[in-house]
Amino acid sequence: MTNPTAAMLVIGDEILSGRTRDANMHHLAGELTRVGIDLKEARVVSDHAPAIVAAARALSAAYDHVFTSGGIGPTHDDITADCIAEAMGDTIDVRADARAVLQAHYDAQGIELNEARLRMARIPSRATLIDNPVSAAPGFTLGNVHVMAGVPRIFTAMVASVLPTLTGGAPLLSESLRVDRGEGDIAKPLADMVAAHPDLSFGSYPFQKDGGFGVNVVIRGTDAARLAQVREDLAARLAEI
Amino acid sequence: MTNPTAAMLVIGDEILSGRTRDANMHHLAGELTRVGIDLKEARVVSDHAPAIVAAARALSAAYDHVFTSGGIGPTHDDITADCIAEAMGDTIDVRADARAVLQAHYDAQGIELNEARLRMARIPSRATLIDNPVSAAPGFTLGNVHVMAGVPRIFTAMVASVLPTLTGGAPLLSESLRVDRGEGDIAKPLADMVAAHPDLSFGSYPFQKDGGFGVNVVIRGTDAARLAQVREDLAARLAEI
Repeated sequence: MTNPTAAMLVIGDEILSGRTRDANMHHLAGELTRVGIDLKEARVVSDHAPAIVAAARALSAAYDHVFTSGGIGPTHDDITADCIAEAMGDTIDVRADARAVLQAHYDAQGIELNEARLRMARIPSRATLIDNPVSAAPGFTLGNVHVMAGVPRIFTAMVASVLPTLTGGAPLLSESLRVDRGEGDIAKPLADMVAAHPDLSFGSYPFQKDGGFGVNVVIRGTDAARLAQVREDLAARLAEI
Repeated sequence: MTNPTAAMLVIGDEILSGRTRDANMHHLAGELTRVGIDLKEARVVSDHAPAIVAAARALSAAYDHVFTSGGIGPTHDDITADCIAEAMGDTIDVRADARAVLQAHYDAQGIELNEARLRMARIPSRATLIDNPVSAAPGFTLGNVHVMAGVPRIFTAMVASVLPTLTGGAPLLSESLRVDRGEGDIAKPLADMVAAHPDLSFGSYPFQKDGGFGVNVVIRGTDAARLAQVREDLAARLAEI
């Protein structure tokens, strides 16, 4: 059985201009690995409707799940909800259930639910709301696209809300082996090992630190005992060179 | 005059599995903004040849420049050079100029230029080498695609090598205004300001910190005096609400 696949779509000029460093991709990648959904691709696009619509369509068609981050607040540059509705062929308007969530939240704080804030209740007609325990304004799932906020604390909370509703596969496990040799020294024996275990994934990550250098070899698969055995075999093999 | 456009292509399973957090996108974004090249899109794909080839083709056709990061070392998972050659319709083999660079580097350290390390001299026939002052193994420019290493220290050095060879436009400048109000309070006056200045770009970035909250409004453009004036007008306008 193969795991479900996923892509991430990060929306925001602030990432592409270098003003902000994206944190949500790294968080989502770790969470998906944990639940057995394979993140295959990530894209960052600007706050530009045609770019968002085209990317959402392409990723929705190519992968089992798409997770978006950013562009669902109350200001002029928050156009993600409308773009996802367009990409998925749905209509969008202020929805009563989302409006009720916002009304309760702002009433409790004595803040007016003005026209700008009401934009955050614009939800596509066929979407399911994603709970936002941090600041109320909900995300939503439409088809296979999960639309979430860009603020990392809210994104994290929404991921925690939506992941239990999805069916993952076998969690991807890894074993890591640190080798104090150059990549060029271990490349040949490593390639032999890769050829002998076509169902496992091997990564080779060189590092240079404190005047020393070496490689972290990471072996990934779903069977913990087998990974440990292959790690041991590889360590023995590399000890001979 | 509009600025040249660019995309970034990050290659690496380790980013998508959450093992490593990408650092190169943020660095490149800042450098491109500084020299007046507009980063419009970024993609992260896995160490999978069809994914790399398809993304490189799509981005090369859509933007003036493509910058890649990762997958040019000596191990089995380093397939970027071959994929870019395929995407751009070029042949690839060990090239004498790249081999000479590696030979000199390894001779100086008394390390053998073995078959694995020689893979790093595989360069497409029509490519120009990108200097690597850190660890010798070169990157390359083929057509409008600039192929660089994934290790951040080497990526940074290669970006410094290649950027002076490119013609940028007017550097994108920004003015930032911190507002201690919610996004929902400033959305309407901000939208009016956006409508009045269609040639400038306005971003709205909410923050929550130390019990307080507010918004950083960032105004981007190429004319410093005009940006300062618009920032002042916006501050005056927001002081009235």
